[in-house]
Amino acid sequence: MSKQERTLVELAEVVGCCSPLVREPLSAEQSTELARLFKAMGDPVRLRLLSLIASHAGGEACVCELTDVFDLSGPTISHHLKVLREAGLISGERRGTWVYYRVHPEALGRLSAVLVPTEAAVGQ
Amino acid sequence: MSKQERTLVELAEVVGCCSPLVREPLSAEQSTELARLFKAMGDPVRLRLLSLIASHAGGEACVCELTDVFDLSGPTISHHLKVLREAGLISGERRGTWVYYRVHPEALGRLSAVLVPTEAAVGQ
Repeated sequence: MSKQERTLVELAEVVGCCSPLVREPLSAEQSTELARLFKAMGDPVRLRLLSLIASHAGGEACVCELTDVFDLSGPTISHHLKVLREAGLISGERRGTWVYYRVHPEALGRLSAVLVPTEAAVGQ
Repeated sequence: MSKQERTLVELAEVVGCCSPLVREPLSAEQSTELARLFKAMGDPVRLRLLSLIASHAGGEACVCELTDVFDLSGPTISHHLKVLREAGLISGERRGTWVYYRVHPEALGRLSAVLVPTEAAVGQ
């Protein structure tokens, strides 16, 4: 096992839940749980919202900064944020007029670790 | 940057496409392309099929071995395999009576790299 692969396996163990899916099949329960997260990310607006929040300075983004990026109504953006929140990918906190969102890095880490490919693929 | 984080960033660079989404926001085009893959995985049966194929000895699985795992009809399994194939996550090759499926590890690697969380999250 290469140093790179060892590190990725460590990551999988740290974040818990599942081995990389190239190593052993997911159970029905694990698949149901993880598919819910992937489904929430299976929309271009939601995925972009997630990346805008995750990469924002300070690790949180005001909803007031997110709506201007898209050519979509406020309620549509709110709906997508709600789907991400209900999936456990982000959480929001109201402070004054606005809600501020943060990603849950442990959820991203878990998904990343499940998808880690084999050493051969990483080296391609 | 820790050794672990360096390795994960190397992984992101090797597999191409996008930086981890915690580092910079995805563009509209990247989000559209990646959301298509996440959407294909956003179903428990498809995600389990993907893991059964990816973890199978020899890296490929006969469709004849996949159908018995689920309490679903052959056509339903075939439909889910088609969605995974059209998303570019797997490919199938007919040999004699059966089709044999393999995952595309570079697609998994790309998604894994995009989701890599920050060092702080990995250490939790």
